[in-house]
Amino acid sequence: MTDDRSENQVELSRRRLLGTVGAAGAAGLALGAAGGAGVYGAAAGSGAPYTDAKALTTVGATRAAFHGRHQAGITTPLQSRGHLVAFDLSPGAGRKEAAALLRRWSATARALMAGEPSTDDTGIALDAGPSSLTVTFGFGHSFFGRTGLSSRRPVQLDPLPAFSADALDPKRSEGDLWVQIGADDALVAFHALRALQKDAGTAATVRWQMNGFNRSAGATAKPMTARNLMGQVDGTGNPKPSEPDFDQRIFVPRGASGGQDWMTGGSYAVVRRIRMLLDDWERLPLDRQEKVIGRRKSDGAPLTGGTETSELDLDRFGADGKPVIPDNAHSRISAPEQNGGAAMLRRPFSFHDGIGPDGTPDAGLLFVCWQADPLRGFVPVQRKLDRGDALSAFIRHEASGLFAVPGGVAEGEYVGQRLLEA
Amino acid sequence: MTDDRSENQVELSRRRLLGTVGAAGAAGLALGAAGGAGVYGAAAGSGAPYTDAKALTTVGATRAAFHGRHQAGITTPLQSRGHLVAFDLSPGAGRKEAAALLRRWSATARALMAGEPSTDDTGIALDAGPSSLTVTFGFGHSFFGRTGLSSRRPVQLDPLPAFSADALDPKRSEGDLWVQIGADDALVAFHALRALQKDAGTAATVRWQMNGFNRSAGATAKPMTARNLMGQVDGTGNPKPSEPDFDQRIFVPRGASGGQDWMTGGSYAVVRRIRMLLDDWERLPLDRQEKVIGRRKSDGAPLTGGTETSELDLDRFGADGKPVIPDNAHSRISAPEQNGGAAMLRRPFSFHDGIGPDGTPDAGLLFVCWQADPLRGFVPVQRKLDRGDALSAFIRHEASGLFAVPGGVAEGEYVGQRLLEA
Repeated sequence: MTDDRSENQVELSRRRLLGTVGAAGAAGLALGAAGGAGVYGAAAGSGAPYTDAKALTTVGATRAAFHGRHQAGITTPLQSRGHLVAFDLSPGAGRKEAAALLRRWSATARALMAGEPSTDDTGIALDAGPSSLTVTFGFGHSFFGRTGLSSRRPVQLDPLPAFSADALDPKRSEGDLWVQIGADDALVAFHALRALQKDAGTAATVRWQMNGFNRSAGATAKPMTARNLMGQVDGTGNPKPSEPDFDQRIFVPRGASGGQDWMTGGSYAVVRRIRMLLDDWERLPLDRQEKVIGRRKSDGAPLTGGTETSELDLDRFGADGKPVIPDNAHSRISAPEQNGGAAMLRRPFSFHDGIGPDGTPDAGLLFVCWQADPLRGFVPVQRKLDRGDALSAFIRHEASGLFAVPGGVAEGEYVGQRLLEA
Repeated sequence: MTDDRSENQVELSRRRLLGTVGAAGAAGLALGAAGGAGVYGAAAGSGAPYTDAKALTTVGATRAAFHGRHQAGITTPLQSRGHLVAFDLSPGAGRKEAAALLRRWSATARALMAGEPSTDDTGIALDAGPSSLTVTFGFGHSFFGRTGLSSRRPVQLDPLPAFSADALDPKRSEGDLWVQIGADDALVAFHALRALQKDAGTAATVRWQMNGFNRSAGATAKPMTARNLMGQVDGTGNPKPSEPDFDQRIFVPRGASGGQDWMTGGSYAVVRRIRMLLDDWERLPLDRQEKVIGRRKSDGAPLTGGTETSELDLDRFGADGKPVIPDNAHSRISAPEQNGGAAMLRRPFSFHDGIGPDGTPDAGLLFVCWQADPLRGFVPVQRKLDRGDALSAFIRHEASGLFAVPGGVAEGEYVGQRLLEA
């Protein structure tokens, strides 16, 4: 593998913007590399411009830090490839086997994220740098019963309420363990997936696995908020790490985990496979698409004017006496100010699993959102969307998962150790 | 879309190496842009170094030329994303509808490859540059009967012989029409796929569709031959455009098409979905993997020594009295000198369609190879591999297609016009 890279040096990735999270995301990487328990978000994220060409040369060389206060893959800028995979513990496997597995997984993640080979490396990623690889581990509701740890299960992991528009496939939902892999190179991401699956050995088997993607580094002339497969700018409204309450909304603060201190510095991930009914969507004329969203397709600006980052003017009426941003517009209903300030950090991948026999693509969004408490993040927003979102007619929630993602670890520690060995 | 790019200027892509085809591939692009019928391969491909960092800034801006002597997507450097899709003409659709479809498709391909929007653009690729998008069109054996053009069907399109190890799924094989899409951005590639499917309208329906990928630009510190999902360096033995007979082996020379002059400048594509049995493969120790291939995994050098590009020493024996490159080694059996100089230009994508219920990945190679005559390219090599290749135990040919890919077109012309309007 590459060998000209210092273990203690992380090249900041300025390449991509996750909504507007990029800057502090990079800051998080740098601090993680500096050694673990530093104050998150206090340095380096100076709103550095994302426009310098030189940064584009670091696609392969960019490295996300494994060690740090939070796991990587949450505020890390969006990568161009992603794998989501859930495992179930094998019959007979319990806390001991789970602890050993998380120890193996952590060692593999640490090595691969540093650009080093894994044990019995398959060679798939030889020649390539770590390419911003992140590996993020979480625990599902069912994990705790199977490991005799029910008393350690946080209330935040209680099952999500049912939503009327859900059409969930249980076989592709939930799971004891969840792993999110992201990288800016497809072979690096696949290599990590194979290595982690091999690590599972006899302790756990794959329950479901999904592949996703985002824009490539450098595909746009300057960094832009992502677009989804409907062509919409997607991610504008994400909370910004520069906001004073960002950390406490996204990461579990000390003492705020209802006695489950092992989740301090962690976050809860809601994962939804959201199929897009693209044939229906694309038949809709542009002006009707824009009314469904409440934003212009070209640049993501609110229909009430301005630029992508302008506030929605929810009280503005048109000449026809109707709100310019319709009552059922997706952006109105999901606006934080309409949801008691509910905040989640959306960090999705698009997916496309081919074209079905009826000619329609099996494509959409692997929605992944992060919050300190799903009952104050995803749930209230989804409740409102479920009732009145004009976008509902064009999407279908096909699978769902909720996972407790513990905080990051110091050197010598493995992810979940504070749960599994306490 | 991007608007600061001249219609007549193509930035050479130095980013990637298709085996060792890169340099003249780029030359092909440049000449194509210059206007069509120039002598292929005569300029620009001066073996330029692939190491300049600046080239990495052109991921989005790099443009392949639609017009030229050959269609793009054959000698174009490998892109990081690919879609293969086959269409069947709808019942009742014939030559007239096919001609209209190829006219629509050509217009869309020309626009999107230039970074312009398509008709009723979905906006999925807004903000992005063309990102080396190529769209390549071909005709299958069944196309000619359905359009009353059986007399124009070249003998080179006769069905491939059956191979003993084939396990072909007819539903994912062949097809009236074939389209190959490649791009260095996933949304650009998907955008093109949607646009072309929409263009098909009522004239044709999707028969099968597959997704593939390769390394990202910049993932390796310097340009390298690709690796496949077995971790092997793959593409070393590809014919080189600098070789004097490259053109006549890969592209149909004038007068060499058995009276089917519409194929002059065209090529035949053999497409195989080759599943890799990765669990079995990865259980094999490294030294046995290397004996299966006959090359070192680390750098692709022959087991008889040297570097990746060194000749195989097929007559060298080890201390054990056995050939150093075993008799059944993949590289020995597929070596051009063992096949009467049979040459094909392999230009594959890897695929990964998730992990099945048995825990094994549905992954492998979307093998695409190009030659002036499949009976002198793919067939003799595959016949030998089918009988004695040690790699056979680890792969499975699951689908197959053979397509006549006509030459490129001048401005105002559409792909296939010389067949459909003659």
